[in-house]
Amino acid sequence: MVEQTIADGEARADHRGASRLEAFSDGVFAIATTLLVLDIKVPEVSGADAALGAALLDQWPRYASYVLSFVTIGIVWANHHRLFTLIGRTNHTFLILNVLYLMLVGVFPFPTALLSRYIGEVEYPNTQQLVTLVYTGLSVLVSVMYGAVLFYASGRGNLLKKGANPAFVERMKRRSLVGLGVFTTVFAVGFLSVYLSLGLLCCMLVFYLLPAEWTGLDR
Amino acid sequence: MVEQTIADGEARADHRGASRLEAFSDGVFAIATTLLVLDIKVPEVSGADAALGAALLDQWPRYASYVLSFVTIGIVWANHHRLFTLIGRTNHTFLILNVLYLMLVGVFPFPTALLSRYIGEVEYPNTQQLVTLVYTGLSVLVSVMYGAVLFYASGRGNLLKKGANPAFVERMKRRSLVGLGVFTTVFAVGFLSVYLSLGLLCCMLVFYLLPAEWTGLDR
Amino acid sequence: MVEQTIADGEARADHRGASRLEAFSDGVFAIATTLLVLDIKVPEVSGADAALGAALLDQWPRYASYVLSFVTIGIVWANHHRLFTLIGRTNHTFLILNVLYLMLVGVFPFPTALLSRYIGEVEYPNTQQLVTLVYTGLSVLVSVMYGAVLFYASGRGNLLKKGANPAFVERMKRRSLVGLGVFTTVFAVGFLSVYLSLGLLCCMLVFYLLPAEWTGLDR
Amino acid sequence: MVEQTIADGEARADHRGASRLEAFSDGVFAIATTLLVLDIKVPEVSGADAALGAALLDQWPRYASYVLSFVTIGIVWANHHRLFTLIGRTNHTFLILNVLYLMLVGVFPFPTALLSRYIGEVEYPNTQQLVTLVYTGLSVLVSVMYGAVLFYASGRGNLLKKGANPAFVERMKRRSLVGLGVFTTVFAVGFLSVYLSLGLLCCMLVFYLLPAEWTGLDR
Repeated sequence: MVEQTIADGEARADHRGASRLEAFSDGVFAIATTLLVLDIKVPEVSGADAALGAALLDQWPRYASYVLSFVTIGIVWANHHRLFTLIGRTNHTFLILNVLYLMLVGVFPFPTALLSRYIGEVEYPNTQQLVTLVYTGLSVLVSVMYGAVLFYASGRGNLLKKGANPAFVERMKRRSLVGLGVFTTVFAVGFLSVYLSLGLLCCMLVFYLLPAEWTGLDR
Repeated sequence: MVEQTIADGEARADHRGASRLEAFSDGVFAIATTLLVLDIKVPEVSGADAALGAALLDQWPRYASYVLSFVTIGIVWANHHRLFTLIGRTNHTFLILNVLYLMLVGVFPFPTALLSRYIGEVEYPNTQQLVTLVYTGLSVLVSVMYGAVLFYASGRGNLLKKGANPAFVERMKRRSLVGLGVFTTVFAVGFLSVYLSLGLLCCMLVFYLLPAEWTGLDR
Repeated sequence: MVEQTIADGEARADHRGASRLEAFSDGVFAIATTLLVLDIKVPEVSGADAALGAALLDQWPRYASYVLSFVTIGIVWANHHRLFTLIGRTNHTFLILNVLYLMLVGVFPFPTALLSRYIGEVEYPNTQQLVTLVYTGLSVLVSVMYGAVLFYASGRGNLLKKGANPAFVERMKRRSLVGLGVFTTVFAVGFLSVYLSLGLLCCMLVFYLLPAEWTGLDR
Repeated sequence: MVEQTIADGEARADHRGASRLEAFSDGVFAIATTLLVLDIKVPEVSGADAALGAALLDQWPRYASYVLSFVTIGIVWANHHRLFTLIGRTNHTFLILNVLYLMLVGVFPFPTALLSRYIGEVEYPNTQQLVTLVYTGLSVLVSVMYGAVLFYASGRGNLLKKGANPAFVERMKRRSLVGLGVFTTVFAVGFLSVYLSLGLLCCMLVFYLLPAEWTGLDR
């Protein structure tokens, strides 16, 4: 009887554990996305009445970077959320992998600010390339850590719910490898052309955002 | 038996999915409102003892903008919250629409800061008009996206709970169209008069804040 | 049968509604407290090796203000939390009162920064008094709004759980009035002496923090 | 019957109370970690095309401090999370201890920024030592408060769940004392050598991050 109470307590604790990990993760995701707006500064103009409009248009890379990073983190969140619908238990290694994963997600505002500050400097192609590589490189790292979390949970860690559909898990794994391949390609293309690399990234995000029925993507 | 376990798992996953979407959304709402305070700066004065009081009064547009935006995001949150009491399931398109919606909510601190910085510049009417149009324009966009989320969930997406009252859903849809109409009017009036536009916006918010019994508004 | 499903749905929706209001509120509380740290700046010193220590000690009002405001918001949160253990349903007016209440809580980082910047300016007593009055004045407003939320929920709004202990509710109401009285006294004393006012505030917070068994406070 | 409803209500309220304390705590943890990124600034360079790369490499202490503090707060969160799986009820003193604990966690971005700004100043050893002592000193304080929360909950407060395994609780207490000892050692070593102190801290964190099977650590 006491044994059973303890076992129940542990089952509930495990469930609650996964919930808290979700709550902490959702906090980091929500804050990382919302901090992005701090990079859109109010331009300081004075004197002429028409100056503000021009100054606002001038900082278009900041708006573009906001959209790019918000959508990226939104997609990363959606994947994390999908993964957690399958998680039944947590353990130490899983917690740690998640903390490292969130550490990469939480740093997103920095390369976003870097990109928005320097991508418009057309006279300095090396600088443009550097900030593009830093930005897409972080996306590759996030993909790698997402794969690590997913493969650990479904493999060695054995943390999935009993009722989890094996075919669905296999599809998620395959998709994470495809995603990693695409991000690595986007990163590598950055060594050839900054514009091609960022263009590919945007195409990929738009493709992901489209309704599943149009793209035939299995989600 | 196994089939049923999976089906149960999916039902629970769906429910948990909606909860996590709420948690992520609440995070973005809470942070977007709380970041607004960062726009209220501590004035730097020195020398005279009475200078701080004047400097504090001088930045009244920052306090007014804080109240305006906090109340606006609060109302947007209340609507989102009301909508989610009806949601029974989520899908890919719904997640994406929500991310785009939150992207607009999360950007609110920027036009708020813009408004608070430039609305007091009475000698530059075009600048005043520009920041008013940007601010009310964002409200229109948020209304449009809210409508998109609501109409998708209750229409093509078919995501409402089984027990959702159809008459209540119809009223919500009608209200979202009325809201969109009002915000579009406030935006359009901004081309004629900045003060009339902001005055209308304030009236609308106060009207919304009043107890339902006074305004006869069906909520 | 259908009727019952709807009724159930509404009961659950109400419960979930209170949960989401809590989640949103907790977000605002957590962010308002955590943003306080942004006011503790890294001093910029150069040249002498010993300069940093002196510069760090010099900004003691920032550390004191951080502690003061964190504890204040923590207590405000604890009261809110206690109140919500009694709430069974929500309605429009209750949501709005809460949004207005959170608007006041969310602005705390501003008077905190104001206090920490100017309280050390001993040569300008009026400036010291002004920032003290702003700070304690906000505490009075928060107390008033807390009372409004509490009295509305237990009175006209009739939002308490069925099993809520009436004697406990009465004690909470009485305590909120005592709290309001104390904060108003602290505020009023600020017109006589800044140091007495802040000293009283600190005493009150310490008294609140002490274990219930020591202070005989009924909680 | 009425008695029972009230008792039930209180049991549920207690449970919900612990949940809200978790939600508030998770918010503070998530924000404290995510605010760390604000300390990684976009370097302002102009003129030469290669300057940005050098400027980015130059601020390596900021990246290192981000990783160090994110991992530290992540571990602190994981311990808090583990503790809360055992908590069955809350009371006033427990709430207050938690608020004080979170106050220390929430201040982490400050010593992190201090460390990242001054640790690279090799020509000023006293300054390096000071920021190291501040940083490791905060870790000691966090350990002390964590111990206070844990010992209070399992001792005088008597807040653990009925089914909590006594041996597991004992192991948690022992571990918290070991952790406090290690952090105090790291702090004390800082008086001898900054590099040794920070090196020890990093070793400890890496050791903690390693899978439990490798380190033989009982978790």
